[in-house]
Amino acid sequence: MLETALLRQDFPNIILASKSLRRAALLRQIGLEFEVRPSEVDEPDIPHTSPALAVQELARTKAKAVAAPLNTGLVIGADTVVFIDRQAIGKPENDAHAIEILTRLSGNRHEVITGVALVDLDRGREVMWSEHTAVYFRRLRQSEILEYVRSGEALDKAGAYGIQDRAGAFVERIEGCYFNVVGLPLASLVERLWGLLE
Amino acid sequence: MLETALLRQDFPNIILASKSLRRAALLRQIGLEFEVRPSEVDEPDIPHTSPALAVQELARTKAKAVAAPLNTGLVIGADTVVFIDRQAIGKPENDAHAIEILTRLSGNRHEVITGVALVDLDRGREVMWSEHTAVYFRRLRQSEILEYVRSGEALDKAGAYGIQDRAGAFVERIEGCYFNVVGLPLASLVERLWGLLE
Repeated sequence: MLETALLRQDFPNIILASKSLRRAALLRQIGLEFEVRPSEVDEPDIPHTSPALAVQELARTKAKAVAAPLNTGLVIGADTVVFIDRQAIGKPENDAHAIEILTRLSGNRHEVITGVALVDLDRGREVMWSEHTAVYFRRLRQSEILEYVRSGEALDKAGAYGIQDRAGAFVERIEGCYFNVVGLPLASLVERLWGLLE
Repeated sequence: MLETALLRQDFPNIILASKSLRRAALLRQIGLEFEVRPSEVDEPDIPHTSPALAVQELARTKAKAVAAPLNTGLVIGADTVVFIDRQAIGKPENDAHAIEILTRLSGNRHEVITGVALVDLDRGREVMWSEHTAVYFRRLRQSEILEYVRSGEALDKAGAYGIQDRAGAFVERIEGCYFNVVGLPLASLVERLWGLLE
């Protein structure tokens, strides 16, 4: 009785409703098979009150949009936001904005919140939750920030960094799920998949 | 003035005194160039008192062994141990031992301690330190443990798991540096490299 094999048997059609290559890599890391169908949902601004609920709602909207034309399969939607001082930090608009964001994160703690929604068409069940991870950057030199932004890695990433790339050396400590910072909380995802079968 | 470029200029000959592919991948992740020269040092048992000093000493022994015939370069030595209930957990001897270790880690907190030593032959300086990360496994099903051990991933890894492989889904929380659990604490490494230049 193999675990991932069992999950594969029970969820033969997993659909990742995200175009994130990092999320796809995480699912592959734990041996799940899936197809990718990004949703066409625009990302609205997250209201300042209850970001945990807002990201879950957005994850659910994405999953539902992809699930709508289907009648079988398990759809995974996810949305990740970065917060510092209770303020949402989106993706940088340009290099100057990325420098501003990284300067703010330098030497400080911020929060990464991922909302995840599972829409199980075969069992007619839905589940959603959010995972919080605290991330502590060491104090960065200005030259480190500039080099990182020039490398092009900062763009298209919430919080203007990817912990799985060069910016890994910026992060001296996390409290919570590491994979949540990359984009998908693996341990809670596997637990919820099992929960759908109970 | 590019940061990693500057570090590369100041440390043109970085030598990783470890045959760990994971440590090499971490150095590549942050853009450092290096060559690999594993030490021939046997890993002695870590005494129960002060594991933090023991891993530093072992890291230093490895780095010094590789540095001995050289007259230039920066040698990085490292050693990682896993502790649970103050007891060192080494690499599993066989599949049955791996199952025993993972069963013990399931639903519990353990500590990963990496000792790192830098031997800077050009500046005649040495520095060593240890990094501690607490790791929390969710409660695993027996079938998950068996499947993981059968996959062959458990062998040759301290604590019988690799957080960067399928076992990533076992880890619900960490407190500390993630890369330390993989095998090398990147943020403190970069800080110490800069420190050698001061």
